[in-house]
Amino acid sequence: MNANELWSRYREFLSTIPAVGLSLDISRMTFDAGFLAKMEPAIQKAYADMDALEKGAIANPDEKRMVGHYWLRNADLSPTKEIADAIRKGVADIHAFTKAVHGGTIKPPTKPKFTTVLSVGIGGSALGPQFAHDALGRPGKDAMQVAFVDNTDPDGIARVLKTLDGKLGETLTIVTSKSGGTPETRNGMLVVAEAYKKAGLDFARHAVAITMPGSKMDQHASKEGFLKTFEMFDWVGGRTSELSAVGLLPAALQGLDIDGLLSGAADTDAATRSKETRKNPAALLALMWHYATGGKGQKDMVVLPYKDRLLLFSRYLQQLVMESLGKRDDLNGKRVDQGISVYGNKGSTDQHAYVQQLRDGVNNFFATFIRVLEDGGSPLQVDPGATSGDYLHGFLLGTRAALYDNDRQSMTITIPQVNARTVGALIALFERAVGFYATLININAYHQPGVEAGKKAAAAVLDLQGKVLAALSATPQTAELLAKTAGVSDQIETAFLTLEHLAANGRAKSDGAADPGKRAFAKA
Amino acid sequence: MNANELWSRYREFLSTIPAVGLSLDISRMTFDAGFLAKMEPAIQKAYADMDALEKGAIANPDEKRMVGHYWLRNADLSPTKEIADAIRKGVADIHAFTKAVHGGTIKPPTKPKFTTVLSVGIGGSALGPQFAHDALGRPGKDAMQVAFVDNTDPDGIARVLKTLDGKLGETLTIVTSKSGGTPETRNGMLVVAEAYKKAGLDFARHAVAITMPGSKMDQHASKEGFLKTFEMFDWVGGRTSELSAVGLLPAALQGLDIDGLLSGAADTDAATRSKETRKNPAALLALMWHYATGGKGQKDMVVLPYKDRLLLFSRYLQQLVMESLGKRDDLNGKRVDQGISVYGNKGSTDQHAYVQQLRDGVNNFFATFIRVLEDGGSPLQVDPGATSGDYLHGFLLGTRAALYDNDRQSMTITIPQVNARTVGALIALFERAVGFYATLININAYHQPGVEAGKKAAAAVLDLQGKVLAALSATPQTAELLAKTAGVSDQIETAFLTLEHLAANGRAKSDGAADPGKRAFAKA
Repeated sequence: MNANELWSRYREFLSTIPAVGLSLDISRMTFDAGFLAKMEPAIQKAYADMDALEKGAIANPDEKRMVGHYWLRNADLSPTKEIADAIRKGVADIHAFTKAVHGGTIKPPTKPKFTTVLSVGIGGSALGPQFAHDALGRPGKDAMQVAFVDNTDPDGIARVLKTLDGKLGETLTIVTSKSGGTPETRNGMLVVAEAYKKAGLDFARHAVAITMPGSKMDQHASKEGFLKTFEMFDWVGGRTSELSAVGLLPAALQGLDIDGLLSGAADTDAATRSKETRKNPAALLALMWHYATGGKGQKDMVVLPYKDRLLLFSRYLQQLVMESLGKRDDLNGKRVDQGISVYGNKGSTDQHAYVQQLRDGVNNFFATFIRVLEDGGSPLQVDPGATSGDYLHGFLLGTRAALYDNDRQSMTITIPQVNARTVGALIALFERAVGFYATLININAYHQPGVEAGKKAAAAVLDLQGKVLAALSATPQTAELLAKTAGVSDQIETAFLTLEHLAANGRAKSDGAADPGKRAFAKA
Repeated sequence: MNANELWSRYREFLSTIPAVGLSLDISRMTFDAGFLAKMEPAIQKAYADMDALEKGAIANPDEKRMVGHYWLRNADLSPTKEIADAIRKGVADIHAFTKAVHGGTIKPPTKPKFTTVLSVGIGGSALGPQFAHDALGRPGKDAMQVAFVDNTDPDGIARVLKTLDGKLGETLTIVTSKSGGTPETRNGMLVVAEAYKKAGLDFARHAVAITMPGSKMDQHASKEGFLKTFEMFDWVGGRTSELSAVGLLPAALQGLDIDGLLSGAADTDAATRSKETRKNPAALLALMWHYATGGKGQKDMVVLPYKDRLLLFSRYLQQLVMESLGKRDDLNGKRVDQGISVYGNKGSTDQHAYVQQLRDGVNNFFATFIRVLEDGGSPLQVDPGATSGDYLHGFLLGTRAALYDNDRQSMTITIPQVNARTVGALIALFERAVGFYATLININAYHQPGVEAGKKAAAAVLDLQGKVLAALSATPQTAELLAKTAGVSDQIETAFLTLEHLAANGRAKSDGAADPGKRAFAKA
């Protein structure tokens, strides 16, 4: 198509959400007129499924759970008064707690005020909070600084704690774990608590929890006397929890506009309930994913926001999209090996990393550009009549054109600026697109059965470690012998790798033999 | 294979570089005995090509350039004395300059010392420096703080400058641009220079350049009186420039061990010159890429370092791998659409984002685990006998097992700790693997012809913007009319998108009509 045919196509297929100023342009996806018509019955089924989900159906059949993240931003839609009340109370609690912390009514024992937040959580308890923190933060102006521990890497935790040197006494730690059983989060909490203790501080008086009532974490927080526990809901999954207490509490403490996040999402929810497909950006997004990937994940989703603040959006989407859609079985139990891979950082930076491959190389992706109209920053003219923001915008349009000219497909989402409402809108848009797409490919988007296997295997490794540690003696022995003594002769390799790791940390001695089969280990 | 068959396979194929303690385990790649034999002639050709490249052949035929990044860490191998001398002088200059900056001999006009570095660069001038900075930094102990401007986003630049509030007077800015013609870097420099000016400071007295002699940047630095210009070499490409001044200068100023970076890379280079394939981890890596992707990029490379410090490694590899291998034509001019897509962040964090899809979903990837033996941080036992580092290690082994059990392939690279030598080793390992793989698939790994198209298209957009801005008048007009006036009637859509962007930044007025075809714009 020539440029003016594309202009017609742009106008024909542009879908907008005027309330938040968001638009989706699918003109550079090469679907033909018949595609939308062909898919209309399937997308109508997706609307119906979504209606049922929003009304409180058991939309996650494996876990026999309702899926209620849309209620979080419009409690009136909740299926019961109890749920609506719990949502409203949750937001009111966050506002009240934040006001008390900012005002110094809730304060640490040894300092006049909490000035800093340390958020401990992983997966859905980190990716959304980190995205909002970075997208909406105003260095030097935020009400509180926020740092994140999102792993069980002791060195990584130490690095974060180092940035809080001398400030732990005024640091409020949030521990977020829905079930309370996530080892990384529990470990992070224990290592952080140790740091408070070493600083002569009472961790519990600096700690709040976000968890489900009755969970291990809830019990722990209660027993230890945490300042407060905020409720997570059974019917909100980790990857769709950004607009629950999980995302709202750290955001509110930072000073971000959580009502804006919620209203932007609510307005997007309202617009994407339209059953007129051409006017529903979430439906068009899902349909384009289907078109691009053949409904089978055949192409990767490359997410390229041309705005530094949106750098973490693709990491957030990796979880939302891949954990939701990456499923072995469909709803009928048929093996389908579904999913869509997601990656990307930001434009124009990524142009200098891999646009070479996107344009010229393996055609295994479709791009999603995110275009932000307001530049912000310096209006300095770097050339006559052109600012650095004009360059950024020009690179987006130029790259899109260069891809299109070489038969690479893309979509463009435009927002007026990066603010709480548009961040809420982006989250809501992709949440609903994921839900629609799940219907199109007939899978459960709301469980994660594959995650358990790795956890179980890790638990087995730790169990084996205990046995091998106990088998160590003053006499150097090979992994094979130690595995035999430990009663795990069928796991020599895991024994060896575990011993190698222990030796590197001073918890076993190794003779360093080059051949793993001959290396001998003794008690440290 | 059962666990002990895997143990045999592990021992059989483990390749190591004892000098840096690095090993590569390919036991979880499912190649059979015949694969390596079948590929042996091809990999021998790769060794021969690499020999020629290292001896100074024109290994980048399109650009008629030598490819000399391996000489940077062993100047004795340089093809000429002039090159060897230039390399040695370059490193000596960096040491001397760093010593003078740290000692206050080279100092800013209004403060006793430079305490902070601001690095302005993009692509190869940012990704390597950022990776080393994050991997090796010691918050609170580094000799200087380092911040990065890596884009032409004015808001992003403002955010970075905000973190330097009140510190610009003691901030040394490095502007890195090989050709001196990269607009993002030039724009970043201009906006940063404006900030110095607003603070009443003389930018040139705070600035150094890294560029090729005679480039636009070199001329600019010379004309403005920058403190110093460090040389980039014609025969070092951006994506392999981390061990040139590009990476070494900011690292040295930060206080990192640049000699360690160089020696770790040199030792890895030496080991990976082996023509005995089983003992050459770079060759095995390239061969496994070929095996996993069918030599056609059919699978994505998922990079999962289980260590927070290595978070940015996959972003670094995105450029190194994708810009090198993502090529339309092979060396015979045949269209091949090659490449390998790369993504990943860190384990165990990413387990909670997308291991669900990796294990259960679309089988379109192979994983590369990076295992770091030394835990660092707190040795606190979070369970009896188990530290948070044991959990991290257990999650790696567990996830690897869970993937293998579900027919997902992986490799594991082990290093003893994250230090300058192992970071140098990782860089050198992948650089050489990319070079070998390029021979296997018969492409030029050292040019980037596809990048130009986007740049040209962006320049056209900026040109059009100038025309459209000039066409604006007090009378509101549609994009179509303005495009006509501006003489770009064949580019109405670009005119509209540009006007929409200008209006959002107060540089045009818009009546906000919902239909892009009817929206009218006037002079601001």
